[in-house]
Amino acid sequence: MKVCRRITFNSAHRLFNSHWSDEKNLEVFGKCSNPNFHGHNYVLETWIDGPIDQETGYVIDLKKLKDILNDEISERFDHRNLNLDCPEFAELKPSAENIAVVIWNILRSKLETKFSLSVKLWETENNVVEYNGI
Amino acid sequence: MKVCRRITFNSAHRLFNSHWSDEKNLEVFGKCSNPNFHGHNYVLETWIDGPIDQETGYVIDLKKLKDILNDEISERFDHRNLNLDCPEFAELKPSAENIAVVIWNILRSKLETKFSLSVKLWETENNVVEYNGI
Amino acid sequence: MKVCRRITFNSAHRLFNSHWSDEKNLEVFGKCSNPNFHGHNYVLETWIDGPIDQETGYVIDLKKLKDILNDEISERFDHRNLNLDCPEFAELKPSAENIAVVIWNILRSKLETKFSLSVKLWETENNVVEYNGI
Amino acid sequence: MKVCRRITFNSAHRLFNSHWSDEKNLEVFGKCSNPNFHGHNYVLETWIDGPIDQETGYVIDLKKLKDILNDEISERFDHRNLNLDCPEFAELKPSAENIAVVIWNILRSKLETKFSLSVKLWETENNVVEYNGI
Amino acid sequence: MKVCRRITFNSAHRLFNSHWSDEKNLEVFGKCSNPNFHGHNYVLETWIDGPIDQETGYVIDLKKLKDILNDEISERFDHRNLNLDCPEFAELKPSAENIAVVIWNILRSKLETKFSLSVKLWETENNVVEYNGI
Amino acid sequence: MKVCRRITFNSAHRLFNSHWSDEKNLEVFGKCSNPNFHGHNYVLETWIDGPIDQETGYVIDLKKLKDILNDEISERFDHRNLNLDCPEFAELKPSAENIAVVIWNILRSKLETKFSLSVKLWETENNVVEYNGI
Repeated sequence: MKVCRRITFNSAHRLFNSHWSDEKNLEVFGKCSNPNFHGHNYVLETWIDGPIDQETGYVIDLKKLKDILNDEISERFDHRNLNLDCPEFAELKPSAENIAVVIWNILRSKLETKFSLSVKLWETENNVVEYNGI
Repeated sequence: MKVCRRITFNSAHRLFNSHWSDEKNLEVFGKCSNPNFHGHNYVLETWIDGPIDQETGYVIDLKKLKDILNDEISERFDHRNLNLDCPEFAELKPSAENIAVVIWNILRSKLETKFSLSVKLWETENNVVEYNGI
Repeated sequence: MKVCRRITFNSAHRLFNSHWSDEKNLEVFGKCSNPNFHGHNYVLETWIDGPIDQETGYVIDLKKLKDILNDEISERFDHRNLNLDCPEFAELKPSAENIAVVIWNILRSKLETKFSLSVKLWETENNVVEYNGI
Repeated sequence: MKVCRRITFNSAHRLFNSHWSDEKNLEVFGKCSNPNFHGHNYVLETWIDGPIDQETGYVIDLKKLKDILNDEISERFDHRNLNLDCPEFAELKPSAENIAVVIWNILRSKLETKFSLSVKLWETENNVVEYNGI
Repeated sequence: MKVCRRITFNSAHRLFNSHWSDEKNLEVFGKCSNPNFHGHNYVLETWIDGPIDQETGYVIDLKKLKDILNDEISERFDHRNLNLDCPEFAELKPSAENIAVVIWNILRSKLETKFSLSVKLWETENNVVEYNGI
Repeated sequence: MKVCRRITFNSAHRLFNSHWSDEKNLEVFGKCSNPNFHGHNYVLETWIDGPIDQETGYVIDLKKLKDILNDEISERFDHRNLNLDCPEFAELKPSAENIAVVIWNILRSKLETKFSLSVKLWETENNVVEYNGI
């Protein structure tokens, strides 16, 4: 049985590779390499797979998952500049793929090992990524 | 090839454990334990996996699946109180997880064995569960 | 300039007219008259019309409007049975129309008179009402 | 790591089996067999599974995928009559299932073999199919 | 008090002006002039403005409006070719604007004069029109 | 007759008042005053009110409106930092309200005077503003 809680957060980011020239960054990342940053309303679905607890009828209490998501994800990334404010992206480009990996690793450490974990992250209504740790 | 039909239905429910005190129910289920019930617009996606029939181009005629969903799910649960009106939940807490299991079992018995079945159930726009029989 | 904050809340309700027979209630209200209640995920848009404050760039701070909506609407109606738990509907049928009127009256009394107010309420994804006090 | 790009296209189609009588076509395909065609706003999600490129932080540059989708899918199917304008459906009924297979085959030939491919196609907001080549 | 019922229908259409050359039609209408038609999932919101009936709590019973919309709109336009199957568009280009006018006129004649009427029609998720008779 | 075209664009912004202390900015704008910026996927609906052209069936060719929106709005604001990259916000706080006013003024100057204009701007799925020039 899989259960999911959806949240949103708003962040600024910029994609660029510090080993490349500005020209190469512009060629590869286009408008995403704007040095002054741009931003997104990210939508995050956190999917947990595990057995139903017979006493509660829940896989996991989604209120508890909501609290974890608030403390670990919204507090860290909402209304932040991912490149400047978040040490997780000091050396890592904040592409949707890398953000999903970072979020997965944070959440994995907060969840019991009996649960499988997958995250789905919308950067825009047309661009989505999904990561399950593999 | 997987195909899906989406429906909605509106139900009331209450989460509580009859072996627990009111205090413990309130602690675990919060506002969901309100004795007078609350409700949801449930959204159900029914996913069927099977081969394409060459004569029709269909895996299954979605109009037939729509009829099954109407007769077996909407007729049973739409505009009902899951705790009071539905014998399926006489002994089972109507959490989203358990509702998905009940729906999966009902639909499984109405579909040919050549089809795999998975159901996805939104309780709110932020809370979703998914069940494929395992 | 109009600004809007959207919230959701989950409630149970039942439509019936105590001056009518059960048969007439069933004829007029159909499945909505189920004596055990059913429920909805209501979506509420609160629209406020007023001038922009030059110091803040806001018509109204939407965080303050969010707090008003939480204290006055979510606390009152979320995870409640509108017929049984809410004195506003002791004598008033909790149709989407009447819920919108009740919400409009509550919010009107909490907002400065310089603001115009309109509320839009989705009962399902296909049924919506809108009320501006007239 | 899976990444997805979403596009939409608008097409007309008709479902009928040329080996059947008009009566049988009407019986099986219902209103979908209307000889003058009807149409849909199709929504296509293209999911690609592969490793993250460390230099870019991307699995695949979604702008390149957007270009492939524009050249290979939108140019072919947008504002077309699938039965009359598209040789892919000269002998093949343009059911959602068959359209998904055709799109998967086109995209598979344009993508590097290191990527896995899956497509999800909405015919209406309630009817969806998904195909991953198996 | 305004109330709304949302429906969807799927139709094929083509935009062209029979007094113009093919070149001019292509220049003005672009891909929309494809002689073999293309199609859309239209979404229609029907908004009715009137007083609340105290006996029912309704402006209008949305189940009755649903029946009117089914009989007068879905039966006429769903799974049809607007140009070929629908006499309303024999002399009138089936642009979203004209479809809205036709629908408004049909519905106006079926509703009591105490109600004001407005219709909102999505041709795609990005193109919408709204008409209130003026 | 009103017609609408919907677009999206992604921008970073920061809300602060340069005449205030950092403490007052934090108190009034909360997380929105983060000096490193955050961002949004803005959704813009542009509504135009005018008569139907009988030759085309259009109020305005939405492809032309799409071009205006691309040249005047997306090119200016998409993947930009509103505070740093956009002279329109050099002296003006980029609140959703002010962005709507700026967009309205830009579009008003590009549209024929026979058209009325209204813009609706989503900053998040829960925060929306609407402006018609008054």
